[in-house]
Amino acid sequence: MIKVGIIGGTGYTGVELLRILSRHPGIELGVITSRNEAGTAVADHFPSLRGVVDHDFVDPASAHLSDCDLVFSATPNGVAMEYARGLIEAGVRVIDIAADFRIKDKIIWERWYGMEHACPELLAESVYGLPELNRERIRDAYLVANPGCYPTAVILGLAPLLEDQCVDPANLIADAKSGVSGAGRSAKLGSLFTEAGDSLKAYAVGGHRHQPEIHQALAGLTTKDVGLTFVPHLAPMIRGIHATIYATATGSSQNFQDIFEKKYGAEPFVDVMPADQHPDTRSVRGSNLCRIAIHQPGGGDRLVVLSVIDNLVKGAAGQAVQNMNIMFGLDETMGLEMPPLLP
Amino acid sequence: MIKVGIIGGTGYTGVELLRILSRHPGIELGVITSRNEAGTAVADHFPSLRGVVDHDFVDPASAHLSDCDLVFSATPNGVAMEYARGLIEAGVRVIDIAADFRIKDKIIWERWYGMEHACPELLAESVYGLPELNRERIRDAYLVANPGCYPTAVILGLAPLLEDQCVDPANLIADAKSGVSGAGRSAKLGSLFTEAGDSLKAYAVGGHRHQPEIHQALAGLTTKDVGLTFVPHLAPMIRGIHATIYATATGSSQNFQDIFEKKYGAEPFVDVMPADQHPDTRSVRGSNLCRIAIHQPGGGDRLVVLSVIDNLVKGAAGQAVQNMNIMFGLDETMGLEMPPLLP
Amino acid sequence: MIKVGIIGGTGYTGVELLRILSRHPGIELGVITSRNEAGTAVADHFPSLRGVVDHDFVDPASAHLSDCDLVFSATPNGVAMEYARGLIEAGVRVIDIAADFRIKDKIIWERWYGMEHACPELLAESVYGLPELNRERIRDAYLVANPGCYPTAVILGLAPLLEDQCVDPANLIADAKSGVSGAGRSAKLGSLFTEAGDSLKAYAVGGHRHQPEIHQALAGLTTKDVGLTFVPHLAPMIRGIHATIYATATGSSQNFQDIFEKKYGAEPFVDVMPADQHPDTRSVRGSNLCRIAIHQPGGGDRLVVLSVIDNLVKGAAGQAVQNMNIMFGLDETMGLEMPPLLP
Amino acid sequence: MIKVGIIGGTGYTGVELLRILSRHPGIELGVITSRNEAGTAVADHFPSLRGVVDHDFVDPASAHLSDCDLVFSATPNGVAMEYARGLIEAGVRVIDIAADFRIKDKIIWERWYGMEHACPELLAESVYGLPELNRERIRDAYLVANPGCYPTAVILGLAPLLEDQCVDPANLIADAKSGVSGAGRSAKLGSLFTEAGDSLKAYAVGGHRHQPEIHQALAGLTTKDVGLTFVPHLAPMIRGIHATIYATATGSSQNFQDIFEKKYGAEPFVDVMPADQHPDTRSVRGSNLCRIAIHQPGGGDRLVVLSVIDNLVKGAAGQAVQNMNIMFGLDETMGLEMPPLLP
Repeated sequence: MIKVGIIGGTGYTGVELLRILSRHPGIELGVITSRNEAGTAVADHFPSLRGVVDHDFVDPASAHLSDCDLVFSATPNGVAMEYARGLIEAGVRVIDIAADFRIKDKIIWERWYGMEHACPELLAESVYGLPELNRERIRDAYLVANPGCYPTAVILGLAPLLEDQCVDPANLIADAKSGVSGAGRSAKLGSLFTEAGDSLKAYAVGGHRHQPEIHQALAGLTTKDVGLTFVPHLAPMIRGIHATIYATATGSSQNFQDIFEKKYGAEPFVDVMPADQHPDTRSVRGSNLCRIAIHQPGGGDRLVVLSVIDNLVKGAAGQAVQNMNIMFGLDETMGLEMPPLLP
Repeated sequence: MIKVGIIGGTGYTGVELLRILSRHPGIELGVITSRNEAGTAVADHFPSLRGVVDHDFVDPASAHLSDCDLVFSATPNGVAMEYARGLIEAGVRVIDIAADFRIKDKIIWERWYGMEHACPELLAESVYGLPELNRERIRDAYLVANPGCYPTAVILGLAPLLEDQCVDPANLIADAKSGVSGAGRSAKLGSLFTEAGDSLKAYAVGGHRHQPEIHQALAGLTTKDVGLTFVPHLAPMIRGIHATIYATATGSSQNFQDIFEKKYGAEPFVDVMPADQHPDTRSVRGSNLCRIAIHQPGGGDRLVVLSVIDNLVKGAAGQAVQNMNIMFGLDETMGLEMPPLLP
Repeated sequence: MIKVGIIGGTGYTGVELLRILSRHPGIELGVITSRNEAGTAVADHFPSLRGVVDHDFVDPASAHLSDCDLVFSATPNGVAMEYARGLIEAGVRVIDIAADFRIKDKIIWERWYGMEHACPELLAESVYGLPELNRERIRDAYLVANPGCYPTAVILGLAPLLEDQCVDPANLIADAKSGVSGAGRSAKLGSLFTEAGDSLKAYAVGGHRHQPEIHQALAGLTTKDVGLTFVPHLAPMIRGIHATIYATATGSSQNFQDIFEKKYGAEPFVDVMPADQHPDTRSVRGSNLCRIAIHQPGGGDRLVVLSVIDNLVKGAAGQAVQNMNIMFGLDETMGLEMPPLLP
Repeated sequence: MIKVGIIGGTGYTGVELLRILSRHPGIELGVITSRNEAGTAVADHFPSLRGVVDHDFVDPASAHLSDCDLVFSATPNGVAMEYARGLIEAGVRVIDIAADFRIKDKIIWERWYGMEHACPELLAESVYGLPELNRERIRDAYLVANPGCYPTAVILGLAPLLEDQCVDPANLIADAKSGVSGAGRSAKLGSLFTEAGDSLKAYAVGGHRHQPEIHQALAGLTTKDVGLTFVPHLAPMIRGIHATIYATATGSSQNFQDIFEKKYGAEPFVDVMPADQHPDTRSVRGSNLCRIAIHQPGGGDRLVVLSVIDNLVKGAAGQAVQNMNIMFGLDETMGLEMPPLLP
């Protein structure tokens, strides 16, 4: 049994991690920390976990995290970098679900996250935890940077095309729509039911933190320059990301459906739909799946890739558990077999 | 392994049954019938089940249902009564998730369902499948009438009070709010997103089919006359029922919290919340739980019981699986351990 | 032209007042105050008002409110009582849309609102601004306490029955469901899209501030003791209140439909639906209407009244404008003729 | 007073036309036809219009449409073309809110709409009713083809750039998101609350009827070849279209904000937001506005235009009334001054 700790268990990533881990046969849930809720029963904080999780939140100062084999960090950005070094030195492997170790370039990271990085040397050592691209490196990693939600959907939708060199990497567009849980469980005016409900808007068109993260991953798949326009939108739904990706085919005609099916045919958590279909976000709700469809409207050189995930599962807690399974030699799907909840 | 068949698998009860049964370790999924979708892959009909269920829908005429140990009937009302007798004679046990066998009195059934009953003799023999009230009789039943969604929430909310004889059974009110999935997966104008969305209304205030079903169950718990006003409402949510139940306490003061905790303390699927709490429907989303809170505002004689379920799980497919587990001597919670999906 | 000021224009009542007043032909919009947003253009704060309202928010300290004929107070509770006396002495009439002057009994007010009342002598002088009950007194009032949203729906649904003495006033239940805008435009966790969405719950079953407000109004309509159980619910919609009211008929049978039609036949903003109909909240969205239906299920002595309003219009800003029209001798419907927005 | 008739008043365009026209001071509402609802009171069909519209639906066969000055056709596609010729010959001007006269090329129309056109000679004579592009021709038109909802948002978002020749017309992308009311008021499975709710999907990526309509309008603004990829999405909201438009700037740097402000500065129903802002669909809910923002992320050559409308107002009924006002020499904003409903 792998002994698991969670730092920062009071947000949506936390409750989702607990939902998944509570049914995972290969782990033992150790400590769950929260500075604000220390002493409170987890089940009082999240009534959905009454009878499911018996733990209390523990103050991080008194939590014996070094007894764990693995720690998930589900805190806001900028927290994991403060203690990751200590945990690793104590022999604890770490999966950071926030953004502290996703970007390799310290300068870029600091520009987008607006703070100084506390342990820049770990940026090089961390492994970007997208199993479909980095499975082998994840296996031996002691520090995994769990990808962002938008990046997961967009990178999985573009990787086969870039690897196959059949599109122009300089001319990519990702128009992404996210449910409101992507904004986290914090009391922000723009996330109110009355503000986000029955409405849709783009945001951060001038620049979003996930753009450099996606750019870095795509750049690793091609020797050419990558040019990516990324526009996120807030949609009136709780969970789900729908990325609509536009690319321009180069060279002679290809069977793009085949390219996707070959790339992902053996992947347990990527489902390539048959030609001409359209995935909806609810078809992956509550599951660790990324569902993808590839279109070539009118047979022209413009390709349209549709890629959907549940932002809290494949875009956060589920992918973190998938990474854990890989790191500890478990069946990669362990604890992640739940079918989507529909309707 | 119990061999299971499903008649009528194209509705929301069907997809929910398949979601649950696909992860149930004690059963083998045999045939799934559909008159309209025969020959279609289940996963084409419900993309959420791609990679989860490999079956095709089979025409009921050619389905070998008599090879099954158990058949779930997930059809519209009036269908199960046509073939239940034949299945039972072939040694197949039947759980009807529709309403054909819920009401014991043929006259009342025919008045509310607007058709002649095809096998009235089975009305007496069928067992009302509410495990918290009828567990022992369900164990040996060959025909189980799975309760309606509203009745499940309301009866569980009132049973402890009636059994304890501490409220006036002649003066009960159940004000119930349901998500739109309660109306089923059929193209009705009133169920459109544009009609049911961002709005709330009562319906069938003059009379609803679930009123006599609830009345019958409550009448079985008391020797006095039962008087129940039942008002259903349509709320703009997908899943969930919230029953707000009003009763009048009789006699000297009692500890109502205790009464509920004693009644349900050992029940795996009924959660009595601590005093002064309010369950929300999402806290049981996707799970087989009924969560209940009991209030006595101002310490007066008016009691308010709040009872929430997921109408598709404890109110339909989940309770049907719970009944199956009881009928076949399996652990009652087998296949039903998934925690609620929140947010 | 009536010169109008608004104190506290940054909440939902504020934006709704501005939407209505911007099209009102009888008024001139003077000053709109906000402590936090002073200097900001109203249209920057509420993009829906771009091109509609040209004003900037003004700091209340420097606002010349005493130049106004009328001031609407759209602040949180406890603010209007601080300056109402001063405005009235300067000859300005005041409509408080918050709760400072709704309850006549200082002790009760202070218990429910958790603060000392700053000008208790005004409690007696203020007029409760429900035109259908108090039209004549509103006409000459210099201080109107605009009713709460729940009270508006519940009192209008019960008044005809109490005035007609045909129900037992000691045994009333109001089960009310509100959209999330009832919680105001403030960043509260429970009002997040991800918390309030796709879910429904009761709250404050033990006691809610609107209970004594409703009780006081009902007590004014009968000489007998009033007993009211009031249970509010949060529903996943933006606007709208649906009150489902239960009462017990006394004496010989009556035509309750007639009673309502007689009471409200001449009212411009109360619509009594034909028998057996069910109003939905969206049928009054954006309008100043209260739509009511009266049911007598099975012809028994239990009556069920369904009463719907838009909580921001008839439950707040619209009713305030209706009161203003009455106070200043304008056509009562002026500026309030917009039909509901459906779908 | 202009005498107005409506053919096909039972859909969402119908109820929205009636909402607007009921408050329009320059018209007299004559006849409203419906084949299915003839004899029914409009207010029974749409309770939101109780007390607002007193008419009954009339069978089209017996409706005296030729007495009208103007007829709005709010029927499904393929109906207006059957009677438009007759009305025009009787001296009645016609605004078709459906698609029968939007596409000039009969071959293209018939390919996309799957039927033979009944009066192809009118295709040339009809005027495309987008006032911001065609105001002068609309003034004298006897047959106006009211634009589709997606085309309105997309064309208004691209017109300034194409007219100014500052983008490459061969490389345009419109990623558009629509509320469910765009699918009309008909009982379709995919429009159910339980199917479209809490989910988002693209549809018709292979080709959508609005693509040739948009293409035709854009082609009229440039002498070069137009290449447009158009991908519509269904979003879980009732009203609203959000078009996110991608174009590539050509030539030296320009002030794109200026280009939009110059083009639309005098337009009553197009609001160009200040730089760096993001319109949300709710900011135009219930109003005839199109709100636009122009972005140039990172100062590169990729432009992103955000364009939002209410699909039932500026995308249908409101624009039809705007066209009527122009055709009859009324103030263009008459009856259309209602501010958006927010929240």
